[in-house]
Amino acid sequence: MNQTAIARSWVEHANGHRDFPLQNLPLGIFSRPGEALRCGVAIGDAILDLEAVLATGLLAGQAKVAVEATRGGALNAFFALGRAARVALRERLLELLGEHCEHQQSMQAALYPASECQLHLPAKVGDYTDFYVGIQHATNVGKLFRPDNPLLPNYKYVPIGYHGRASTLRPSGTDVRRPKGQTLPAGETEPRFGPCARLDYELELGIWIGQGNDIGQAIPIAEADQHLAGLCLLNDWSARDIQAWEYQPLGPFLSKSFITTLSPWVVTAEALEPFRCAQPARPDGDPQPLPYLLDPKDQARGAFDIELEVLLLTERMREQGLPAHRLALSNTLNMYWTVAQLIAHHSVNGCQLQPGDLFGSGTLSGATPDAYGSLLETTLGGKQPVELASGEKRTFLEDGDEIILRARCSRDGVGSIGFGECRGKIIAAN
Amino acid sequence: MNQTAIARSWVEHANGHRDFPLQNLPLGIFSRPGEALRCGVAIGDAILDLEAVLATGLLAGQAKVAVEATRGGALNAFFALGRAARVALRERLLELLGEHCEHQQSMQAALYPASECQLHLPAKVGDYTDFYVGIQHATNVGKLFRPDNPLLPNYKYVPIGYHGRASTLRPSGTDVRRPKGQTLPAGETEPRFGPCARLDYELELGIWIGQGNDIGQAIPIAEADQHLAGLCLLNDWSARDIQAWEYQPLGPFLSKSFITTLSPWVVTAEALEPFRCAQPARPDGDPQPLPYLLDPKDQARGAFDIELEVLLLTERMREQGLPAHRLALSNTLNMYWTVAQLIAHHSVNGCQLQPGDLFGSGTLSGATPDAYGSLLETTLGGKQPVELASGEKRTFLEDGDEIILRARCSRDGVGSIGFGECRGKIIAAN
Repeated sequence: MNQTAIARSWVEHANGHRDFPLQNLPLGIFSRPGEALRCGVAIGDAILDLEAVLATGLLAGQAKVAVEATRGGALNAFFALGRAARVALRERLLELLGEHCEHQQSMQAALYPASECQLHLPAKVGDYTDFYVGIQHATNVGKLFRPDNPLLPNYKYVPIGYHGRASTLRPSGTDVRRPKGQTLPAGETEPRFGPCARLDYELELGIWIGQGNDIGQAIPIAEADQHLAGLCLLNDWSARDIQAWEYQPLGPFLSKSFITTLSPWVVTAEALEPFRCAQPARPDGDPQPLPYLLDPKDQARGAFDIELEVLLLTERMREQGLPAHRLALSNTLNMYWTVAQLIAHHSVNGCQLQPGDLFGSGTLSGATPDAYGSLLETTLGGKQPVELASGEKRTFLEDGDEIILRARCSRDGVGSIGFGECRGKIIAAN
Repeated sequence: MNQTAIARSWVEHANGHRDFPLQNLPLGIFSRPGEALRCGVAIGDAILDLEAVLATGLLAGQAKVAVEATRGGALNAFFALGRAARVALRERLLELLGEHCEHQQSMQAALYPASECQLHLPAKVGDYTDFYVGIQHATNVGKLFRPDNPLLPNYKYVPIGYHGRASTLRPSGTDVRRPKGQTLPAGETEPRFGPCARLDYELELGIWIGQGNDIGQAIPIAEADQHLAGLCLLNDWSARDIQAWEYQPLGPFLSKSFITTLSPWVVTAEALEPFRCAQPARPDGDPQPLPYLLDPKDQARGAFDIELEVLLLTERMREQGLPAHRLALSNTLNMYWTVAQLIAHHSVNGCQLQPGDLFGSGTLSGATPDAYGSLLETTLGGKQPVELASGEKRTFLEDGDEIILRARCSRDGVGSIGFGECRGKIIAAN
């Protein structure tokens, strides 16, 4: 294939669009001022209102069923339909938005400028699980505590994860209130209470679950990938000082549950298909996954090659008109386990997954400092500040700082698609 | 007051009922065969159908609004109304079920034998948080790892908790499928995969949240108790061998998320009011709670005096017609923190609580072995088996074993109320 084979849209601003060309078609929940929430598809700088498309009569069969399942302001019922319905809708939208479509006039009426729309969470998350499968991150964080032995003995056998808080998931653009909590100042034995002084971000992939399973019924690894609905970006904001004091023995709690920000578009498994690749070979000496986590098909095509970027913009940088500072450029290939392995592991004890459940991957740092996905790593636990063009320095985040996550996949002959942004700005503690 | 002052019901089997006399009136969600889920109130051995009461026209004002909010098969909207609506409904039901009620015939038609009804979870749990505030349990478990220093330095400052799994909460009577998972056999360095061999129960109090808070807005300790809707029993089934291998560094995960069993009746804050008492004084040398957790009113009346009981019934005991074996008799006064302190702590970082959220207290062991709330403690980590009248021994739970949790409050002149049962029987791994 060559570039000329990339399908084009009659929506001109979609062709060559950084994030949302025709071959992406991510789904989300949007609203226009004063109107109800409904499902839309991002195309270039516009949003296609699926309810309006349905009203044109241009949808039939499974594609129609799929759109009917997007009603009610959340995609859970749509996710529950599984892959076939997603594919049917995608195929029909590729026709209707493709350059040879004969219904452009009807379709045009269903397009709104994205700038006039508000985006919401795409689904009502039943349970949110945060994994820890970025092996560079786990190694970097482990080194801060155990320089000679950064990874615990279970790390290469168990896809480590913990239950997160679903109620404080918020869409991109929601302000991040600096949390208060207990912290133990260095050298002291009694905690103090006050605003977090070591506020951090974490660069993560968000994983949307499609069809679920019954309680007591594990999802076999060979079928696990069929339960993936799509991906997004996730910022697992972290209060490092609260975390250090509270997390033993049961894990992070209030240090993570003040807010978690998601990019609002669900980039579907189908749109990501061209960007799948083999899971990187494990280093010599690493154990093989146990059989319940091992599937040849998954090893061959279960990984994603997605470039991830983190940008920082401070209040002063905004005032001075400076561009955002790139904190990290990383990749989802830093995941030690595939999405299918996470799904198989999560359900192997009989735990019920439900449509619209969300996983976070864990922080996806790369091997070098310019790819570290948290300030804890970039600044070596606050010891080595980041220097900015504004003359400012940062160890952790200050009020007014904004973190912007981006993701993009690109392949010759296939073109590229993006995830849109996952933004959040710190505001002062109450 | 003396016993004669205890209000009586025209529902004769309610008077002196072990769990559900007139002064209890717990709420739950039930169904009759082939019919939709709806809200009921336990009264003696019967269930009062609130929808049927509404149809009689005997409810008005806030009591009527309250019942309308119980529709849809879940109490979340009712919980969201808060205390005033609960009180209005309770006051009216005390009249309508009281011995002097003039509408007994109409009311009688709204009563069903409990034995003909199925009970469900009372609410759709948005988020489930499991605390660890049973200080005897934390001490006992800590001793297994650190005999000289069982409690970590944060324990007496921080109400320790972690996020749990909401999707696998189930009502009493649901079978408990033995989970599979990774475990590390003693003395080995590589894990194996298979059915859990150290399956345990945990005796906990379940805490239902009524009105919630907005993200970013902490609930002050002085107002926290107003956010309590009611209590239930909770069995936090635990796979000890899976837990030991998986839990570092982020806490328990699959060892807890295969099922968590709840007693189906919400015993309201109002019914429990007579059984409240002062929070037990902290032992000499323990720190005072930080100011955000300290409220004189809460210290004086924030605790609950509820007796808790655990029974074990094996397959062979059932065959031999033997009564259940009492594993433990404990009390909620073993909580190191009050419910109000848990609510204030959970929200102090701005975390949003929502109506129908659920907290577990953590295992509520007493000081002596006959009050230990898990087999891990009772058998000293499996070293000292429990001997049963059937001639059997138990270190951990075997297939066919059933665990029954019960709770009861009693006070002279007030009488006693109970929680009903929280039962679960182990079935073989898939």
